[in-house]
Amino acid sequence: MSKVFVNISLSLDGYMAPEGMTMENWDRPEYMDWGVKWGALMGWALNQQYLREKLGFGPGGETGPVNDMLRRTFERTGAHIMGKRMFDGGERGWPEEAPFHTPVYVLTHQQREPWVRPGGTTFYFVNEEPERALELARQAANGRDIRISGGADVIQQYLNLGAVDELEIALVPVLFGAGRRLFEHLQEPVARFQIDKVLDTPGVTHLRYVRA
Amino acid sequence: MSKVFVNISLSLDGYMAPEGMTMENWDRPEYMDWGVKWGALMGWALNQQYLREKLGFGPGGETGPVNDMLRRTFERTGAHIMGKRMFDGGERGWPEEAPFHTPVYVLTHQQREPWVRPGGTTFYFVNEEPERALELARQAANGRDIRISGGADVIQQYLNLGAVDELEIALVPVLFGAGRRLFEHLQEPVARFQIDKVLDTPGVTHLRYVRA
Repeated sequence: MSKVFVNISLSLDGYMAPEGMTMENWDRPEYMDWGVKWGALMGWALNQQYLREKLGFGPGGETGPVNDMLRRTFERTGAHIMGKRMFDGGERGWPEEAPFHTPVYVLTHQQREPWVRPGGTTFYFVNEEPERALELARQAANGRDIRISGGADVIQQYLNLGAVDELEIALVPVLFGAGRRLFEHLQEPVARFQIDKVLDTPGVTHLRYVRA
Repeated sequence: MSKVFVNISLSLDGYMAPEGMTMENWDRPEYMDWGVKWGALMGWALNQQYLREKLGFGPGGETGPVNDMLRRTFERTGAHIMGKRMFDGGERGWPEEAPFHTPVYVLTHQQREPWVRPGGTTFYFVNEEPERALELARQAANGRDIRISGGADVIQQYLNLGAVDELEIALVPVLFGAGRRLFEHLQEPVARFQIDKVLDTPGVTHLRYVRA
């Protein structure tokens, strides 16, 4: 049975994205310094060989346990679910061969035909409840796992549905001060997790929790 | 020169204390389930031999690296600083021999004579700025370190002063959903930290950061 998992980078103060990182400021990374902050959050991943290759950044990059972890994350995933805001950013930011290589279910009120990208990524626009997107993702994943990609509000919805089996957090020692918090709007009874594994690297602490 | 440090337990969603844990509900730990949540947050510490002894909980308890860490934290500390709300809770909750054994500077608008407890703890009530409490603590600490004990608002004030050298967080895999957040009201430029050490235990991840 497919596992449902979240795998994100998080600032030490709990933000998935810095304040100012919105569509209208997409071309102004200097706005509220969001580009620098985002770079500090994601730098560890962009330094990994596997992701560099996936994103077409060229050769080089680290090849240790973090790289292996990234590879396993991509390989285990049979479908993605994301919110409209994340999709909108990605539509502008991802390379033509979008880095998913699976069906991606986008939760949105917008009606739109599936958008097929080279390399196996097809975006489906789901105008129904998150439960329905999860159903579709389960069918498509065919036994592989389902990644709730983000943003924060979509992850919160699935946490509140009790649907998240695994929570993987790359905790980065930066403080954003403001932005989009991962943990907000959680409803009682809140989901319960226990520590599964910690990968301790000099720049980032990789925390893996599983449903308790 | 004394280091200024913070050493706290934090829920995975970033809270130092659950919602409902206030003075008026001090005798009602069932209110919003705050007692159970607080227990889940602090249980790891109360299981350690060193703290059990300090708090008069009797013999027994773990004696491994976490216990050693707790002992070092207490032994390095020459003065504490805390907020009035934390003091108020402690005034009711601590044993007569309060578990500090140093001067404790309480930031408050209340005027009150120093309160001497058996065992070397004296509470001084500081009606001035946090900078002044830190000066007094430095003098009293006599080269040992200064612990900013809490609550969250006091820690935030010292983070915003750029005065915190070390940030030690026991990250506990519980989600509170609401309560008093550690990281809030941070001002630009936000303090910068880097990972110093991670102690990975089955129930708690002990994260130590130092000023970058």
